[in-house]
Amino acid sequence: MIDQNIKIAVDAIVFGYEKGTLYVLTVQQRFGELADKWVLPGGFVKDEEPLLAAVERELKEEAGINVNYLEQLGTFGDDINRDDRFRVVSVAYFALVNPQNFVLKADTDAKDAKWFPLNQLPQLGYDHDEMVRLAHQRLKSKLTYQPIGFDLLDQEFLFSDLENLYCSILERSIERRNFRKKILSFGIVKETSKVVKIGNSGRPGKLFVFDKAKYNQLSKENFQFDIRFA
Amino acid sequence: MIDQNIKIAVDAIVFGYEKGTLYVLTVQQRFGELADKWVLPGGFVKDEEPLLAAVERELKEEAGINVNYLEQLGTFGDDINRDDRFRVVSVAYFALVNPQNFVLKADTDAKDAKWFPLNQLPQLGYDHDEMVRLAHQRLKSKLTYQPIGFDLLDQEFLFSDLENLYCSILERSIERRNFRKKILSFGIVKETSKVVKIGNSGRPGKLFVFDKAKYNQLSKENFQFDIRFA
Repeated sequence: MIDQNIKIAVDAIVFGYEKGTLYVLTVQQRFGELADKWVLPGGFVKDEEPLLAAVERELKEEAGINVNYLEQLGTFGDDINRDDRFRVVSVAYFALVNPQNFVLKADTDAKDAKWFPLNQLPQLGYDHDEMVRLAHQRLKSKLTYQPIGFDLLDQEFLFSDLENLYCSILERSIERRNFRKKILSFGIVKETSKVVKIGNSGRPGKLFVFDKAKYNQLSKENFQFDIRFA
Repeated sequence: MIDQNIKIAVDAIVFGYEKGTLYVLTVQQRFGELADKWVLPGGFVKDEEPLLAAVERELKEEAGINVNYLEQLGTFGDDINRDDRFRVVSVAYFALVNPQNFVLKADTDAKDAKWFPLNQLPQLGYDHDEMVRLAHQRLKSKLTYQPIGFDLLDQEFLFSDLENLYCSILERSIERRNFRKKILSFGIVKETSKVVKIGNSGRPGKLFVFDKAKYNQLSKENFQFDIRFA
């Protein structure tokens, strides 16, 4: 056995999107030097545990939730002092979910679990601010080339809901007419015959649905979702 | 200190491109169960060593080369038996270089170091075949949205050289007229007044240059290199 004193951990950046706001899931540390500090859910990997199983377990233990589709963001281990106690290399995962589908429940190492709006996030412990920044960057980029946003909307949605989602996550304005034209040109968003009143204006707005079957079919035919030029 | 018996290693997938062929750098193991087997350069991280420094050191020790711009590919640690000896989690990095700029020299754990054409790669030890497969996937995708190919060509190149590079790495044919039109539309590839004879045909071909300054300037203006539809 080689002599090496480095520990390996996992951390999760779980983004939630709801009604125009992008949230990040955080937990409040119960023990140790960082007690009461907010951090990302995470912890040490067990000897017989796949990395992905470790991050799923930590999310269950510390925040009481099951998250599917966690994707590896990257591994943090260039700063050998990123943990004051001893050297820890952390494999970070991220996900995007609808917070409405989750009931948070802190336990084990976490005394509280909470969704913070990304723009009101307190300073997190360790290098977790940097993890969130990188995960947000990756999320922005992913949003432009994969239709990951539709899972976060109601099944029937206003075009303005979709626009708001893109504006919130990309943190910029969108040229609305281009965006609409581009999205509709893909043929994966269908207009329904239903109309609802938009917000306080009372103006009628058509409802749309995402045609996932069509998207899956097009994907096989080398179709590429892409709204980078919107 | 928590009780954990997992070791952390790094591995490098270094692609080389030269005259229509994509290569992978491999080293032949000197010691252990896998002696004589070809594997990716790599090894265990030292306690005080950043991950990136570890992979740079291993490339230097095992293959005698200095590689800049290593990018993290992902961390392999879901298969807890990926190393027969004990549990090893490996952080994989990849790079794309011009093999002409490197003189290989095996040492330490490696008895030989060699560029294999990707399509003639022997079966590698550990899960390194899977690492190569994933790295190639990432390279293909990166090639379509970043102008990383130009560094691998001579400063002045024929348009057919650029086409060959894309065809070789993407492993598919390219619609030549579309590709040319698309690349030229970016304004980052400039026609020179020089003409050379192409291959054996003796047909004259214009030489082109990549205008990196222009690309850097355009990048600041939100320009997006993209040849996915070629």
